[in-house]
Amino acid sequence: MRAEIIAVGTELLTTPRSESNSVFLARKLREIGIETPRKWVVADREQEIHEALGLALKEADVVIFTGGLGPTRDDITREAVAGFLGLELHEDPGIMQRLRKRYERFGMELTDNNRRQALVPEGATVISNQNGTAPGLLICHSDTLIFLLPGPPRELYPMVEEKVLPLITKLKKTKPLWLKTVKIAGEAESHVDARLSPIYSAYREIDTTILSSPGIITLHFYWKGEDDESLAFQKLNELVGKIKNEMGGSVYAEVDRELPDVVGELLQERELTLATAESCTGGLVSKLVTDIAGSSQYFVGGVVCYSNSMKVELLGVDPSTLERHGAVSSPVAAEMAEGIRHRTGASIGLSVTGIAGPGGGSIEKPVGTVFLGMANEKGTETQELLLPGDRLTVRLRSARAALDWVRRSLS
Amino acid sequence: MRAEIIAVGTELLTTPRSESNSVFLARKLREIGIETPRKWVVADREQEIHEALGLALKEADVVIFTGGLGPTRDDITREAVAGFLGLELHEDPGIMQRLRKRYERFGMELTDNNRRQALVPEGATVISNQNGTAPGLLICHSDTLIFLLPGPPRELYPMVEEKVLPLITKLKKTKPLWLKTVKIAGEAESHVDARLSPIYSAYREIDTTILSSPGIITLHFYWKGEDDESLAFQKLNELVGKIKNEMGGSVYAEVDRELPDVVGELLQERELTLATAESCTGGLVSKLVTDIAGSSQYFVGGVVCYSNSMKVELLGVDPSTLERHGAVSSPVAAEMAEGIRHRTGASIGLSVTGIAGPGGGSIEKPVGTVFLGMANEKGTETQELLLPGDRLTVRLRSARAALDWVRRSLS
Repeated sequence: MRAEIIAVGTELLTTPRSESNSVFLARKLREIGIETPRKWVVADREQEIHEALGLALKEADVVIFTGGLGPTRDDITREAVAGFLGLELHEDPGIMQRLRKRYERFGMELTDNNRRQALVPEGATVISNQNGTAPGLLICHSDTLIFLLPGPPRELYPMVEEKVLPLITKLKKTKPLWLKTVKIAGEAESHVDARLSPIYSAYREIDTTILSSPGIITLHFYWKGEDDESLAFQKLNELVGKIKNEMGGSVYAEVDRELPDVVGELLQERELTLATAESCTGGLVSKLVTDIAGSSQYFVGGVVCYSNSMKVELLGVDPSTLERHGAVSSPVAAEMAEGIRHRTGASIGLSVTGIAGPGGGSIEKPVGTVFLGMANEKGTETQELLLPGDRLTVRLRSARAALDWVRRSLS
Repeated sequence: MRAEIIAVGTELLTTPRSESNSVFLARKLREIGIETPRKWVVADREQEIHEALGLALKEADVVIFTGGLGPTRDDITREAVAGFLGLELHEDPGIMQRLRKRYERFGMELTDNNRRQALVPEGATVISNQNGTAPGLLICHSDTLIFLLPGPPRELYPMVEEKVLPLITKLKKTKPLWLKTVKIAGEAESHVDARLSPIYSAYREIDTTILSSPGIITLHFYWKGEDDESLAFQKLNELVGKIKNEMGGSVYAEVDRELPDVVGELLQERELTLATAESCTGGLVSKLVTDIAGSSQYFVGGVVCYSNSMKVELLGVDPSTLERHGAVSSPVAAEMAEGIRHRTGASIGLSVTGIAGPGGGSIEKPVGTVFLGMANEKGTETQELLLPGDRLTVRLRSARAALDWVRRSLS
């Protein structure tokens, strides 16, 4: 089963922003067993919309347009698609009534442009929009389903989940895709594929995709063999078992979860609390931990001590340790971790001190040199890392390495 | 002048990641006056590559492929494009020699797949790659320039800046685009366009694009009138002047700069230092400040105090203030700002306390209620905000509002 996604909007081509609706759509379609071998971003122009639709219709089972359904003059998706298919547009009284009500509520007048949002190509199905003015539309053209969906993510996402996917599943009789996910932390991304490819390559009925981001690797395994659910899961589980065997404690989740979420869950299960003392990461560790709703249950607080004097002042690091070993050193990491644990009373004190660059490196301690410290009831440990990448990458790798260390210590 | 960008790679369609090379390319092309009314992401499949190239060649002056030049079996861009154009591939001795050297250096053997990276379509120009194994290729097909460029951003970006854009400028005699940028902070995005559109709409020779992200709005103005540089800049400057007049101190930059960068520069100019006390933002303010290289010049440190006891312990907030007003209140924001300023000796103490959600809201203080505090030599001030959005958006808006307040106080 094949889909094509066509994002319409001149602004998507001219502003420095990645188009993410199509990423969401391709993932959702994949979950119901539909491949998207091509996607497009086209300007709000009839010619581009016609050409894209023309090529898409040659093979696609499902074509999804997003964007260009708004009330401004630029928004021409509805008219362009209807024109290409030779369908007339009629004003839909139901939509018109809802539009009128909505505009009245905000004390606004309905203009001619607004009225265009009530136009529906003959024979099309209207898909109501709970979060905006432009309804979605479904046109059945021979065997192809053509969807016209709104561009704003907060309108699009719920419409896709609640209406579009169920419609496709029903009309195209698709079945769910069988897949497994493995998340890995604390390994050099460049080495992981070399270790794993001999394992997953042996499974010809399973498609493997690997996504790396600094310090985190996500593996997706998709079943593409015969239509037998128990065989699929037997093979998928067998492969995941072998991957876990090879990677050991580096596998931190078997679903698509973020590392701080897993760390938070472990802390909560064990009724432990965490506090952070950060230098080079500048608050990134605590930011990642507190991205998670409910983190106040286990995160008590932290200190960002960028200068030496703050390490002394806020954390009680011994000035002579700083002088003897330098701020980026194992003894300072240890004293930072102990200091924050002591000051906050948290079960675990976690520290990061390092050189994120671009300046500040030396031959002895090049950019990317990072020390982590962890203090808990058993005592204090430190780790030295040498991390590749630019400033932002070194900071992200450091923060994730620190959180992964907490995870490993609790697993 | 018209370009089409075709990103090749099955992984771009199947992994939850936005494709960003094309955003970079479209922006760079726009700067030399080339429009990109369509871009594509296609799988590593001959059919999709042929169809995209076929349609692109109908009108484009420049076609840029990215990706699919690597050494693995999947990578077929080179062969597919040459096949479509009827060009034979020859092994290039210069590339072959560099490949051999590179692999020897890493102690690796050159496989048949690796050798494919040395293949060049007849008549094509080789564009050397300083950062990887796959060179870029330029094929001149009638009047159209077809570029085949590597996918990894750290190989692509320098190749585009240093080689591809100069080649296009020379061969297509393009001229730079005349544009101006305005960045706005601390305004509700939904209201800004209503205020500005009557102003910029009056300039028919200027194209305006508006990009909003939580708390920040970026306006780009592109000249599309006649080919007269002094007229272009006279009109662009006139429009920017009117925009600044309307938005006043909310305009924080007239180039594409980040807010923390501007705040850092102001602090450095005035020889002031900053320290932060964060509750709901959980370290995000200090993270944003320290994303900037050299921030240790003006950022001394901060405290993340998620719990009430930490506000007392680490910042000296009075327990009776917490009890009387609650942690999310103006008096607590004031004491946090004073506390961090006092403990660190920074010139400016900046605090954030609020309810980021999804839980924790009440009728009196709903989710999105945020208090900022600023303490400096003149005294202490606070601000109350009610910010829309989910947890991550409220946090980002809060952090940016806090930084913008510092900017305004220094401007």
